Amino acid sequence: MASDESRLAAIEAKDEIRELTARYCHAVVDGDADAIVELFCDDGVFRAHTSAPEGRAALREFYAAGVGAKTHKPFVQNHVIELEDDSHASGRCSVEIRVLQDGQPYTQAGHYLDKYRRVDGRWRFAERHYIRYHNAPWREGWTK
Amino acid sequence: MASDESRLAAIEAKDEIRELTARYCHAVVDGDADAIVELFCDDGVFRAHTSAPEGRAALREFYAAGVGAKTHKPFVQNHVIELEDDSHASGRCSVEIRVLQDGQPYTQAGHYLDKYRRVDGRWRFAERHYIRYHNAPWREGWTK
Amino acid sequence: MASDESRLAAIEAKDEIRELTARYCHAVVDGDADAIVELFCDDGVFRAHTSAPEGRAALREFYAAGVGAKTHKPFVQNHVIELEDDSHASGRCSVEIRVLQDGQPYTQAGHYLDKYRRVDGRWRFAERHYIRYHNAPWREGWTK
Repeated sequence: MASDESRLAAIEAKDEIRELTARYCHAVVDGDADAIVELFCDDGVFRAHTSAPEGRAALREFYAAGVGAKTHKPFVQNHVIELEDDSHASGRCSVEIRVLQDGQPYTQAGHYLDKYRRVDGRWRFAERHYIRYHNAPWREGWTK
Repeated sequence: MASDESRLAAIEAKDEIRELTARYCHAVVDGDADAIVELFCDDGVFRAHTSAPEGRAALREFYAAGVGAKTHKPFVQNHVIELEDDSHASGRCSVEIRVLQDGQPYTQAGHYLDKYRRVDGRWRFAERHYIRYHNAPWREGWTK
Repeated sequence: MASDESRLAAIEAKDEIRELTARYCHAVVDGDADAIVELFCDDGVFRAHTSAPEGRAALREFYAAGVGAKTHKPFVQNHVIELEDDSHASGRCSVEIRVLQDGQPYTQAGHYLDKYRRVDGRWRFAERHYIRYHNAPWREGWTK
């Protein structure tokens, strides 16, 4: 049986990681690329269908281009977190994103496969892998 | 380092506050204005784009008019909570709302900036400020 | 006042139950009927509008037919959990589901009324009762 101290620490870690994914959403909505990059480790990576920026400089460029116009509003749900030790964890969470693309509304759904690492006393993204189910014009909806 | 007792209390507070926002959604879906008002402090306030009812009498009038016909179905996500002390906290959470307006489906998205206060042993809303991104006819979608 | 041990155990139970509902969503998305059935008690039941499969054999048949084609993508939110004792709990959580039905996109919303039971050291569904608000063609939206 784990000690009370280690059980408390595990619950606190999961709480902080859950909020990490929420802070990511808020920073995207706010169009704040710097705030997003702060949530990643120095060598963090974001893997999507088209690109995989790695490291803070590449992440900053990627997110500055992606969120500056405040076109994306992500909503994260269904979070499952697996703690490996006191500074490594992984997780899966679902996401729906409201997008404005060329002035038209789009809807995305998918999930993130995350790796988290605790650096300087704070949990951060070591890796986010975005598995996208669809990116559909809102008025049409998805077909797969 | 905080004591085990204070760390436990902090985790319990955040858990209760997260459920407070969920109870709010359930009460809206159920069309139960009294249940919503119970979630606020006596001097609580709800700030929206068009009005800002303050105190339980004003809140009851506001919510009775707003939820009685069971037209709103809110879904809260992305919750970040900051504890100030053992009876004050603030938070931000995202929301999507399914609405029936004049018989037509609408979709809202936005976020709440909340202040929470612990009164009589229970966390309640001292203030909810609803920042609405859009309230769009479902079939059209949003344009900003 | 509850002991630190029992308070910790309560928080851990709620965390595990919240993840139980997330794992359910992931297994539905993955089309993995066996993984869903594992989340239920041996005598678990799923009550929906049209049927109420009870017990693992009936659940496996129900979910194999329902999720095999990977047409459903559920998103669970607004979770409130009431612990009764160290092996019984109940909860209510909201759900939105993206559906592909006969090749067309549909949107569902509703909530689950759950009963949870701890069996062999793991929390599982003793009962899920799905209260569906609507199952609407995506392009039309809901009318109630």
